[in-house]
Amino acid sequence: MREDTIQRIRQFTFDRDWDRFHTPANLAKSISIEANELLECFQWSDTDYDLEHVKEELADVLVYCRDLLDKLGLDEDQIVNSKMDKNEAKYPVEKAKGRADKYDRL
Amino acid sequence: MREDTIQRIRQFTFDRDWDRFHTPANLAKSISIEANELLECFQWSDTDYDLEHVKEELADVLVYCRDLLDKLGLDEDQIVNSKMDKNEAKYPVEKAKGRADKYDRL
Amino acid sequence: MREDTIQRIRQFTFDRDWDRFHTPANLAKSISIEANELLECFQWSDTDYDLEHVKEELADVLVYCRDLLDKLGLDEDQIVNSKMDKNEAKYPVEKAKGRADKYDRL
Amino acid sequence: MREDTIQRIRQFTFDRDWDRFHTPANLAKSISIEANELLECFQWSDTDYDLEHVKEELADVLVYCRDLLDKLGLDEDQIVNSKMDKNEAKYPVEKAKGRADKYDRL
Repeated sequence: MREDTIQRIRQFTFDRDWDRFHTPANLAKSISIEANELLECFQWSDTDYDLEHVKEELADVLVYCRDLLDKLGLDEDQIVNSKMDKNEAKYPVEKAKGRADKYDRL
Repeated sequence: MREDTIQRIRQFTFDRDWDRFHTPANLAKSISIEANELLECFQWSDTDYDLEHVKEELADVLVYCRDLLDKLGLDEDQIVNSKMDKNEAKYPVEKAKGRADKYDRL
Repeated sequence: MREDTIQRIRQFTFDRDWDRFHTPANLAKSISIEANELLECFQWSDTDYDLEHVKEELADVLVYCRDLLDKLGLDEDQIVNSKMDKNEAKYPVEKAKGRADKYDRL
Repeated sequence: MREDTIQRIRQFTFDRDWDRFHTPANLAKSISIEANELLECFQWSDTDYDLEHVKEELADVLVYCRDLLDKLGLDEDQIVNSKMDKNEAKYPVEKAKGRADKYDRL
């Protein structure tokens, strides 16, 4: 996300004095709630979805993720790379290639 | 997210031939599943959480969001700014300040 | 659910002194968390799922729903029938037959 | 749930020819989606919630759970008791009493 987009999200919250509602737990709930509005786009069909609606709901997930990163003082690239270290170890290419199994079943 | 982090996520999927599983619907399910692993960090307490665990689960949400952006050919800043346009219109500062009500109750 | 099953769930909570954790909000989180463990059974395939795992996760959802009914003093048949009244009005047979559209699109 | 309530749910689906949409995967998505509409009642506050709204959303979760039980030919009491057997073994009273820790941390 570009720095100006991040600043816009922060300003939106600041202008409305909504930081008081943004506890980590409330933001975690919000990410799940928005993720399920996204999922609702695919509730009855995997292929017949409204792309404009998908874009809006995915954006909502991303905004709340950004709010939580901010609230906890986290760096997005740092936590993602740290998790990718683990994913790469848990799912070695030779074992995981072409298989959707969970790591403990490989 | 930095370009090198994005590339790492893409390479991870490519190396394992997992793109075949990454339908938009499956990725939407995955975002919800990971969002709920994040929520589980706050299941019984809003304040007593394991930050390291939170970082991992939030990273998982962000990775699947990136996968879905890629799969649908979307630009993160574009969809977020487009949604922020709507949010700013739905929640005018003078009405929404300090209130957690949904826009249709303001 | 049979009365003896309901009593078993209540006894389980009572014996462990877990009622203190069972706020309505925590139970709502728990229902979502378990619903997503159920969803995980279908993460990468709609048809190739582990039925035994599905049964366990669906049971977990049902147990937390029962906990929430109890906590709020609700009668399952009453709230379900009350909602079915609304569903039947929102989705008239002649309009909704064979269509998965949301009521506001019928 | 009483037998007449169960029959009403079945008739509702039958009259609208909606069984075609009720794959196990779609019902699992639906349970998660409704669970998150329930969670939304507690998004910004654990204590200040609209009980009527909670009742409706919990009813929606229960209806989709019933649909999934039907679709898979499952007996609610059987799967819940089978899961309670496991829960009782995983959370022995002497270890779990008054603690919200997951079983692998007891």
